[in-house]
Amino acid sequence: MTKPQAKDLTHLLSAEAVSRKNSPLKSAFKYFKEPGMTFLGGGLPLADYFPFEKITAEVPTPSFPNGIGAKITDENKTVVEVYKRAADNKPENNDVELARSLQYGYTEGAPEIMEFLKEHTDLIHKVPYEDWDAVASVGNTESWESTLRTFVTRGDSILVEEYSFSSALETAHAQGVNTIPVQMDEYGLIPEALSQLLDQWVGPKPKLLYTICTGQNPTGSCLSAERRKAIYDLAVKHDFIIIEDEPYYFLQMETYTSDKSSRGGKHVHDREEFISALVPSFLSLDVEGRVVRLDSFSKVLAPGLRFGWIIGQSTLLERYVRLHEVSIQCPSGLTQSLVNGLLQRWGQNGYLDWLIGLRAEYTHKRDVAIDAVTEYFPKEIISYVPPVAGMFFTVTIDASKHPKFDTEYEKDPLKVETAIYEQSIKQGTLMIPGSWFKSEGESNPPQKPLAENPSHKTHIFFRGTYAAVPLDELQFGLKKFGKALKIEYGLE
Amino acid sequence: MTKPQAKDLTHLLSAEAVSRKNSPLKSAFKYFKEPGMTFLGGGLPLADYFPFEKITAEVPTPSFPNGIGAKITDENKTVVEVYKRAADNKPENNDVELARSLQYGYTEGAPEIMEFLKEHTDLIHKVPYEDWDAVASVGNTESWESTLRTFVTRGDSILVEEYSFSSALETAHAQGVNTIPVQMDEYGLIPEALSQLLDQWVGPKPKLLYTICTGQNPTGSCLSAERRKAIYDLAVKHDFIIIEDEPYYFLQMETYTSDKSSRGGKHVHDREEFISALVPSFLSLDVEGRVVRLDSFSKVLAPGLRFGWIIGQSTLLERYVRLHEVSIQCPSGLTQSLVNGLLQRWGQNGYLDWLIGLRAEYTHKRDVAIDAVTEYFPKEIISYVPPVAGMFFTVTIDASKHPKFDTEYEKDPLKVETAIYEQSIKQGTLMIPGSWFKSEGESNPPQKPLAENPSHKTHIFFRGTYAAVPLDELQFGLKKFGKALKIEYGLE
Repeated sequence: MTKPQAKDLTHLLSAEAVSRKNSPLKSAFKYFKEPGMTFLGGGLPLADYFPFEKITAEVPTPSFPNGIGAKITDENKTVVEVYKRAADNKPENNDVELARSLQYGYTEGAPEIMEFLKEHTDLIHKVPYEDWDAVASVGNTESWESTLRTFVTRGDSILVEEYSFSSALETAHAQGVNTIPVQMDEYGLIPEALSQLLDQWVGPKPKLLYTICTGQNPTGSCLSAERRKAIYDLAVKHDFIIIEDEPYYFLQMETYTSDKSSRGGKHVHDREEFISALVPSFLSLDVEGRVVRLDSFSKVLAPGLRFGWIIGQSTLLERYVRLHEVSIQCPSGLTQSLVNGLLQRWGQNGYLDWLIGLRAEYTHKRDVAIDAVTEYFPKEIISYVPPVAGMFFTVTIDASKHPKFDTEYEKDPLKVETAIYEQSIKQGTLMIPGSWFKSEGESNPPQKPLAENPSHKTHIFFRGTYAAVPLDELQFGLKKFGKALKIEYGLE
Repeated sequence: MTKPQAKDLTHLLSAEAVSRKNSPLKSAFKYFKEPGMTFLGGGLPLADYFPFEKITAEVPTPSFPNGIGAKITDENKTVVEVYKRAADNKPENNDVELARSLQYGYTEGAPEIMEFLKEHTDLIHKVPYEDWDAVASVGNTESWESTLRTFVTRGDSILVEEYSFSSALETAHAQGVNTIPVQMDEYGLIPEALSQLLDQWVGPKPKLLYTICTGQNPTGSCLSAERRKAIYDLAVKHDFIIIEDEPYYFLQMETYTSDKSSRGGKHVHDREEFISALVPSFLSLDVEGRVVRLDSFSKVLAPGLRFGWIIGQSTLLERYVRLHEVSIQCPSGLTQSLVNGLLQRWGQNGYLDWLIGLRAEYTHKRDVAIDAVTEYFPKEIISYVPPVAGMFFTVTIDASKHPKFDTEYEKDPLKVETAIYEQSIKQGTLMIPGSWFKSEGESNPPQKPLAENPSHKTHIFFRGTYAAVPLDELQFGLKKFGKALKIEYGLE
């Protein structure tokens, strides 16, 4: 079956992206590798002067039967070796030799690793249109910044989640972009709220919806397949692009159960089951090419690799490439050679095994965190939805039950939030106050439903993570936070 | 002697840089490493899940007696080994362990490598004011892009060299910046022309001067110490910031002599002589903190490392850090660990030895190129100044002597340029037409002297490089270009 072609969405590009021209030198570079041509056109240093002759990395060997955090021993070790010259590489390894990765080169990313990632993408998302592509970035932070440069001009509006990653909002604000909050509940964006907001909209509509839909930061929510479909339909109707920022996509977990005895069984038995257990991405619904997906190794391999990739229709991605040519150029060659070396040796199946291992680890961490919240936090004042994706959990607290709420705090829930934050630091533990993630911006006309959301007048939340600390410390930290709550509420 | 403090130049920041706020999460992160604190605030994955246990690089050992391109053997090999955990590292190596370099971290760059680079900077430039600093970037392309974001707002003007790196100009144009060409001769920017331009200026003055002053791209010129001083004084007088984009700074060479017998002697005998033979940078003259220097490993180690650094007064650099926090974050951790590993093992002296070796290589390449131009190009129509820095040489050609100049080409030198370009490709060689690097922009009022430059009506130039090809190919390519010229001019 032939797939549809992407729709022309170039009318949504920014003034900057539209005005960006090709380098005139490009026309000369087509002669670069032509036989018989002496190319004296480009300022490329000879690879002879690169001081790196060979690099290696010691990495674990799939299928990681003892978990992805198991100690590497001689038995389960793979050594990735990448040489300066291809002649020294084993060709079957599909390596990116250093003479190439350390030279000026492919802004799109080295073909070997990008091919691997595109194959992986189709395996997971089964992209439903024809002319999609992927471009390397130096991580989702940069991908998002470049996305804003590509689509919005100072004064434009974009849609964001009511609570969102504050750095991502700040990126937009510094560029003079108006961020319109869209109402959420504990399961993420509410399609009806978005629909109402856009139906009432006056003037030029928002160009983008920025969403961290899986393991949302900060709320930890995961948008259901049904809501995604409804939101995608709104994107088509109101002609905006969905930016799905998905660093946590593969940190999807088993559903939480408080019954510890039923946790032992493996829920994902094989790779196929693993893939079908994943919530469908916006990309997997995208018949028009109006989703730009931001993917990254930061949460699945390591943040410091500074390697991400942007997936979308090729016409729009070409504008990112022009921007990258005059900004980051491409991810580090050492990263490209070593990560490609790892992926080629692991293969698609080995990489899936790694992701399955990650799922098991995060499921366990989440379980320990929620168990501890249940055990140590005062039930009278809190509620929570155990997350099914990501690194974060949130605990909602009834501020109106704080003894000082009606008096000293003058019914201001933010004063309760501050008091709890300060008390928890005194107890030696720290979670982030939810209000720090509140997105702000003027919708047109001003958005009624949000202002009327009654829970904002009485409830606050804190964001915690189970990702960053060992399990015993996690339990101890949550016990201390529970104590802080009890002290504040006079429940001890 | 105490050095002066930098002058407050924050009035030159862009609207975007001024509006950029700190992340609210920063205030929580001060508790990150506090003893007794369980920090559940940040989405940092555990280093246990980084699949890289150890990385290594094979690099040459100083002092590189057989040249920097010599084959690495067991005798002259240094193996850089960096482990995930510091306990496995030898502490004397001052390494950046992978648990740190692959984690979210220092936007400024890892302290170890930044300290090394700052020590190196002071060794070379002896920065004459107190509160300067350095911030890591992913190379000068990105440094320049971030510089524009930090200082200019759509509609602003900046000063650029009459001929400049076309990608750098394109970066500015896409951001809506007006680039004002400043007249050059074969020795670079002409201070008198700049002075006249600014004295006559009406309205808000240009905020920046962008200059590739050493081994200029495309002209290959190197700005003298006297001209630098004169231009720095103009920056003080007219209150602009000098951006010195200096990837080629360490590709400074001996003066060319056509007498081959006198070339053998080593001109730079030791490290001290090497340093004092370098042309003084703008940074070395900067008593006010109005120079931003863009430095990079691209031409001295390898472009694909994607590691550069920005030097300037700390108040201005802080704005770059805020921008990097929401864009690139920092260079790749694998790059930081391995390049730091190399530099720590080489030491400042070993690194200087590498740069001295680089000087010798490029001097030889330049000599071969200029010898070939002298031998193969028709003397009647060409002129050139042998470059003393960088990767490029230019050959100026008298277009008015072309047989078709007055007739078919209607006294348009660009038509001669195109004819030569096409003929050279036919002959199997390629240099870049000078007009491709012409900077364009409206000065206020329109700049008379440039328009009147008589040589533009009769002369053209081509840019070649001696960097990118082996010496025999370089000679062969220039022979073919000489032939193309002779054919075009009917001199065979």
